[in-house]
Parts: sequence; structure tokens; C-alpha cells
Amino acid sequence: MLEFWFDFSSPYAYFASLEVDALAARHGRQAVWRPFLLGVAFKATGMGPLPQMPMRGDYAVRDWERIARLRGVSYALPEPFPFNSLQLCRAFYWLDAQDPGAAKALAQAALAAVFQQSIPLLTPESVAALASAQGHDHGAVLAALAAPEVKERCRQATDEALAKGVFGAPMLLVDGEPFWGWDRLPMAEQWLAQGGW
Amino acid sequence: MLEFWFDFSSPYAYFASLEVDALAARHGRQAVWRPFLLGVAFKATGMGPLPQMPMRGDYAVRDWERIARLRGVSYALPEPFPFNSLQLCRAFYWLDAQDPGAAKALAQAALAAVFQQSIPLLTPESVAALASAQGHDHGAVLAALAAPEVKERCRQATDEALAKGVFGAPMLLVDGEPFWGWDRLPMAEQWLAQGGW
Repeated sequence: MLEFWFDFSSPYAYFASLEVDALAARHGRQAVWRPFLLGVAFKATGMGPLPQMPMRGDYAVRDWERIARLRGVSYALPEPFPFNSLQLCRAFYWLDAQDPGAAKALAQAALAAVFQQSIPLLTPESVAALASAQGHDHGAVLAALAAPEVKERCRQATDEALAKGVFGAPMLLVDGEPFWGWDRLPMAEQWLAQGGW
Repeated sequence: MLEFWFDFSSPYAYFASLEVDALAARHGRQAVWRPFLLGVAFKATGMGPLPQMPMRGDYAVRDWERIARLRGVSYALPEPFPFNSLQLCRAFYWLDAQDPGAAKALAQAALAAVFQQSIPLLTPESVAALASAQGHDHGAVLAALAAPEVKERCRQATDEALAKGVFGAPMLLVDGEPFWGWDRLPMAEQWLAQGGW
């Protein structure tokens, strides 16, 4: 199992999302996309959003820009940043229960809107608008985002992340072996290729 | 200028120390070794030693072991860990003012003792013993470690690190461009090779 844990508000997760499927495919695998709420993990580890941390925040902003230039991908921070990705997490797991492919397509569209067009998708309305552009029923999305069982799925996913030691985003679990950070994708790939070492 | 900032108590810095000179040499450059006190940077950024952080600590311990296996290098954590690297920092800058090559040789011997033989070099006596094994006068080392001007050099180096945005170890500054972490050595090398991007 190759799990790709991410938060919709993480630039490093955005960059990883552009690479993870091709990485998996090179080894005949498929990545399972698993959003969770990084803010909950931060509370558990005593961390906080990078931009609010002295020195580390400046480094991260610079690092995101140079990764985008290196990879030649569109990138801009949303405003506000970070934003609460709760509604996106709920929308993802609502779709995922019906059609994982559609959930992943929504996730990709969401990450593009957030990190290419600077649109923070934090309200139910903005998430419903995105989903309806993907062919989903606007009213059904809004109803789903308010449904207790959908809220519960996002909560459970975050609990599962914490139980598996996922404290940051992105984190790849390659048959249980954790690789944290966009910059560890090459090591994760080597692990996949060799079956560990 | 290629600056290699590190703390003698950082496993990631130890792994980087084994690679940084060859990396620099591949591009006709020399790395300037610059120890500093990571604990002071932690206070400035609100961070703490990895082993004391929930989840992140477990990940780091696992990660250090797999990096050692991947690179095929000896590795063991010192006890206690982390340890106060103040005396090593002072010994380094005392020697560095006279003979940078001898200072680097001492640093390499220190990192090997710490991370290959699990010896925490935290007392003046243990540092003097290491230095005398390198051919330095035992009494002169002990005297230097207690000298105000030597203490001041380590303090100034740490101040310089903070002023340059060095919040973690290892950090490479490639003509001022910061690369944080052992796992960013490949990116630092690409920056060196291309002169940035």
C-alpha cells in the first residue's frame, strides 16, 4: 500500500501531488490519496504553521518559490495562508466513498485552485462551486458538507493519520515506511524500487 | 562562498559532514565548516530537540538509522542525546583561528566519536582528550576552552548563524542561498552546478 497523506493547505503537499502518481506508476503501484487536517497534527506535536515561525517561515516561503521554479510549475500562495482545509477534507471523503477517482480529481482541481490561482477554498460555498465545475451537484455537495457522517469521515481520517505517525504533510507511507516531505520523494522511490534497505 | 553550518549534536549534520566536502570538490569549491549552537537557534524559533517531540522524535530516530544503512556508514546515537556541544564549538573555533584544516580534522574526529562510538563530548576533559589524540597539547586545549576570547568566538558564530537565517542543522549556504537538511544536499549541488535557477 502506497499512501499519500496531505493537507490541502500545504505547499509542499501541492508540489508532491504533482509527482506522486507518476512515481507510483513507475513501480507498477497506485498512490492512495489521503487528505487530513494538519492543524490537528500540529496540536499533537507542538508545531504550528511555517509562516508564523521565526526564520523557518522566511525559509519556507523562499523554498516554495524555488521548488516551483525548479519544477517549472505554476505556484502562488493563497490568501489567507494557511487556510482551514476542513471543507475540502469533507468534500474529498464524501466523494471518495462513492468514487475514489472523482475524489482525486476534485483534490487535484482544489490544489490547482489554491496554489495556482491563490484561491483559499475554505467556505462550503467555494468548495461546492469547485465541485460543481467538476460535474457534481451543487446542492448535493452543500448538503454533504453539513452531514454528520461526512464530518465524521474527515475526523476519522485525521485520527488515522495521527495513529500512523503522520505528523506532517506530505507524508508517503510506502508499505508502512514513512517518508516526510516533498524532498523525500526520491528516497521513497528508492525504497519502492528496492523494497527497502 | 559555500558555508556548512552544523551542530556537533545533530545526526543529520553528521551525515552531511560525510558528504559535503566531496560535493563541494565536484564543483571546484571548498566548504567552510561552521559549527554553531543549535539550541540557541531553537530558542529563537520555538523549536526543540527532535527526540523530545511527539511523533517527530520517533520518525527522526527511524530516519537516522535508515540513512546510515542507505549510505553504509557507521552510526549510533550518543548517550545522552542530544548533548551540549558548547565545548566542541569552542575547541573548533580556537583551532580555526590558527589552522582551519586542524579545526576541520578535529570536527571530523569529534563527529566520528559522537556518532560512531556514542561518546557525548560534552566536558572540557573529553574534548581535550580528543584534541590531544589529534596532536594538540592537552593543557593548552583546556586553557583555551576556559578563555573568554574563545568562548566569545563560539558565541559570535552562533550570532552570525542566526543573523544569516540558519535555524537548523545542517544548513548549507551556497553563495548565500540556504539549503536546510541532509536531504537537501542534492538540491544544493544542483544549485552549485547551475549557479541557481
